[in-house]
Amino acid sequence: MNALLLRQLHQPLEYSDYEVPHPGKNQVLVDLYAAALNHRDVFITQGLYAGIKMPVILGSDGAGEYRGKRVLLYPALEWGDQSAHQGKNFRVLGMPDNGTFAEKICIPRRNLFDMPAHLNWEQGAALPLAGLTAWRALFSRCRVKSGEKVLITGIGGGVALQALQFALAAGAQVAVTSGSEEKLERARALGAHFTANYREEGWDKKLKQEAGGFHVIIDSAAGNGFSALVGLANPGARIGVYGGTLGKVDGFSLQPVFWKQISILGSTMGSPQEFKKMLDFVATHKIVPVVDKIFDLKDGNAALERMEKGEQFGKIVTRIARK
Amino acid sequence: MNALLLRQLHQPLEYSDYEVPHPGKNQVLVDLYAAALNHRDVFITQGLYAGIKMPVILGSDGAGEYRGKRVLLYPALEWGDQSAHQGKNFRVLGMPDNGTFAEKICIPRRNLFDMPAHLNWEQGAALPLAGLTAWRALFSRCRVKSGEKVLITGIGGGVALQALQFALAAGAQVAVTSGSEEKLERARALGAHFTANYREEGWDKKLKQEAGGFHVIIDSAAGNGFSALVGLANPGARIGVYGGTLGKVDGFSLQPVFWKQISILGSTMGSPQEFKKMLDFVATHKIVPVVDKIFDLKDGNAALERMEKGEQFGKIVTRIARK
Repeated sequence: MNALLLRQLHQPLEYSDYEVPHPGKNQVLVDLYAAALNHRDVFITQGLYAGIKMPVILGSDGAGEYRGKRVLLYPALEWGDQSAHQGKNFRVLGMPDNGTFAEKICIPRRNLFDMPAHLNWEQGAALPLAGLTAWRALFSRCRVKSGEKVLITGIGGGVALQALQFALAAGAQVAVTSGSEEKLERARALGAHFTANYREEGWDKKLKQEAGGFHVIIDSAAGNGFSALVGLANPGARIGVYGGTLGKVDGFSLQPVFWKQISILGSTMGSPQEFKKMLDFVATHKIVPVVDKIFDLKDGNAALERMEKGEQFGKIVTRIARK
Repeated sequence: MNALLLRQLHQPLEYSDYEVPHPGKNQVLVDLYAAALNHRDVFITQGLYAGIKMPVILGSDGAGEYRGKRVLLYPALEWGDQSAHQGKNFRVLGMPDNGTFAEKICIPRRNLFDMPAHLNWEQGAALPLAGLTAWRALFSRCRVKSGEKVLITGIGGGVALQALQFALAAGAQVAVTSGSEEKLERARALGAHFTANYREEGWDKKLKQEAGGFHVIIDSAAGNGFSALVGLANPGARIGVYGGTLGKVDGFSLQPVFWKQISILGSTMGSPQEFKKMLDFVATHKIVPVVDKIFDLKDGNAALERMEKGEQFGKIVTRIARK
């Protein structure tokens, strides 16, 4: 089968023929038709993870077919038995275990879930990791309710866009931020009620005037802008944090955190149970994940390059041609 | 009646005769027998609060008598109608409203709660503000459960000690920190299972080895030691923060917060409903708040000085003599 292999760090992935794997105990062999990219894939090629084993097929998101049924793959292994956190053996699909950038994958049977019927392969593949991360942050952790005001930072990324779509479907009033006017424009077209460009001086004060404070804030940037988010939080607000791309926070005051009774809720991925709930929600609300651009799997390096530049709006997806 | 008045910032309180107040609508006049100090009282005399009005009778904690019944006062006014946070008009007793450093106080009838029968006046007065703050942080916010491991920083302060007693009564395994060996010793005598002196290099690693990680951490220091607490937190841990005496946090990484699914839960004071629950818990478990030292009300300035030095272990209480 064809697959996209990481053989060496800081080198392009290799599109080559790879032996079809044999299902182990409780595993099945799934035919994949589309796979989406995540920042994780870029970080791994850059050697930013500990314990990288090679050669390995990257890719956490996959849509495919098993015994005539269209399936999406729960994008991780061994969440464990606690809903509050993943267990010690938890790992995201695609390193160390072979992932979805391939024609076929061997995966535990229990990782297979029915793909919502309104989605095509590429839209389906866009959903798992981003959708699950957004779902857990927004609903399991921050417990967003209809009518609440939600702020989502860094719109354009897969999780942020999924959070936007989910929050709107749940009846929230949603504000988004970006450094790109074009992305803000596109978020408005998707239904965002308020937008703010964080490159503008005083964007947070302006947003507070326009939208009021927020009940829920979903962020993956951290960095020194994080304190502005605490300032935008209403008393009793929940701030869901699923990343820290801008690094550490300096001069972080906990005073408004305790006085306003704010909850800062770290969140990553989610359990198979949450994955199922997320898929049901997507099916009920006929949510279509935003696909930025579709590449052929053999052009996977161009896809990774696009992700690295951070210009995308939505998920970058690869289409998997059959031999 | 005699009362301890703040007439001027940075000046001793004045023990003098003050007109007995008349109850307003829905208010009652309570005879006070003991009043406890809080850091808040010191901060106010130092001008560290905004909008200080004078002259004013300080004091948030009071135990007294109303129509022959021993009562404790809910130490604040107008919590509001949300359990998640206090409302806009919320204020702690004692500035701007006259507080408990007096023979009598006019206070809304609904602020009166039966004092647990096993407590004397001074023990009762030690309970309200510290007990309520500890209760909310530990149970309402961090939802500590029997068998969990709890870390409480800065043992010796009123809230920290109350949290220790409550956590032990709830069946938790409790570790405490202090910079004073004597305070750690006394905490062990109260039942603390583990102790750590944060002045020792590598105290956190040593504590982790000895006690393992923690499910719940209760902190009011913040500052740059806060990151060590995140390091001591188990996956899924809740960190309750009710103060920030050591100031802002530099170089704070949210990476372990999201990867470990940690919740950082700001908490301050509590509602009348929580106050009632806390008193019931104290009565059921026959908890006796730790009283550090008892002063006569007329010696209130010596009491404040003791608090300012931070040498106390438990609540500093004033006894209110009758005229």
